[in-house]
Amino acid sequence: MYDGIVQDLIDEFGRLPGIGPKSAQRITFHILQTPAFDVSRLSQLLAEVREKVRFCEICGNVSEQDRCSICRDPRRNPQVICVVEDAKDVAAIERTREFRGLYHVLGGAISPIDGVGPDDLRVAELMTRLADGTVQEVIIATNPNLEGEATATYLSRLLLSLQIRVTRLASGLPVGGDLEYADEVTLGRAFEGRRTL
Amino acid sequence: MYDGIVQDLIDEFGRLPGIGPKSAQRITFHILQTPAFDVSRLSQLLAEVREKVRFCEICGNVSEQDRCSICRDPRRNPQVICVVEDAKDVAAIERTREFRGLYHVLGGAISPIDGVGPDDLRVAELMTRLADGTVQEVIIATNPNLEGEATATYLSRLLLSLQIRVTRLASGLPVGGDLEYADEVTLGRAFEGRRTL
Repeated sequence: MYDGIVQDLIDEFGRLPGIGPKSAQRITFHILQTPAFDVSRLSQLLAEVREKVRFCEICGNVSEQDRCSICRDPRRNPQVICVVEDAKDVAAIERTREFRGLYHVLGGAISPIDGVGPDDLRVAELMTRLADGTVQEVIIATNPNLEGEATATYLSRLLLSLQIRVTRLASGLPVGGDLEYADEVTLGRAFEGRRTL
Repeated sequence: MYDGIVQDLIDEFGRLPGIGPKSAQRITFHILQTPAFDVSRLSQLLAEVREKVRFCEICGNVSEQDRCSICRDPRRNPQVICVVEDAKDVAAIERTREFRGLYHVLGGAISPIDGVGPDDLRVAELMTRLADGTVQEVIIATNPNLEGEATATYLSRLLLSLQIRVTRLASGLPVGGDLEYADEVTLGRAFEGRRTL
């Protein structure tokens, strides 16, 4: 619809997740028409990011160094490891400021349909980290969906022999939510996990 | 929340229109984790686009040359000019394949609140184009909102002296829409503009 490079840029933006053709067009025109928009900065960051960013050799989180800022932090408790599917989950948990231990990023969840088995995840690396006996508790924080639950079950069985406490994040009603609109499975979990007041 | 450059890239994406912090994070991780994603291409296009893309010296549409592909096309009818607010509107009208004339991009609409007057738009350029008597009809296709209507009224008065036919796109019920859900103003316009069958 547009001449050469403008359409090329719209097409490239349109390939990013969650950006449809209309948004891609809007972004491209924003870049063309906003004098203050520092397009060279975005362009340079994009060129650098794949080169500079690697994954932490210990936990698998994103990092600009061999070890991520959490694994390098001496104030974090090395006796507790929280296992997550994705580096984005690390950021989500960090925002709660509730957890002061270390993380382990699996890089996905077990999903036979997508052909993802335990060997495709960073499970062996987790076992290596647990070998020296420092870790007292593994908190499994995979997503509360089919794949996440399957992964949690698999890991809990695998860790059974190590005499380490294995826990799973609670399922239940979201805070601020409405009981009336909760789905049956969530409401069922909320009953199962009810606590004495 | 993330180390250096990853957070920088999330922040830069978050400054684009329609991209919130969650989408910016999702896009950044897509770029980090998708091997097939050609990040250098996006980076290079961004670097080139501001440099290469200019605005057509005749109509104000985006173009990589002094004159855009529509103004250069000898098959377009030079007797009809469609006046639009924005280059995105040119693309929208081109998609209908209904219009074979030329365009004139105003670069906005009259809006006293935002301090945009006729002098801030490409109105003088339009008058210059109309001076040689080639153009027989000016179709005003500004948006059907307050600013667009004000601009249409202003232009129609300005063109009154030139003995050129001035038309405005029809307002009415959108095709495929539901009469019950149409707002009062649109429904009123649909009555006003009713046609004999």
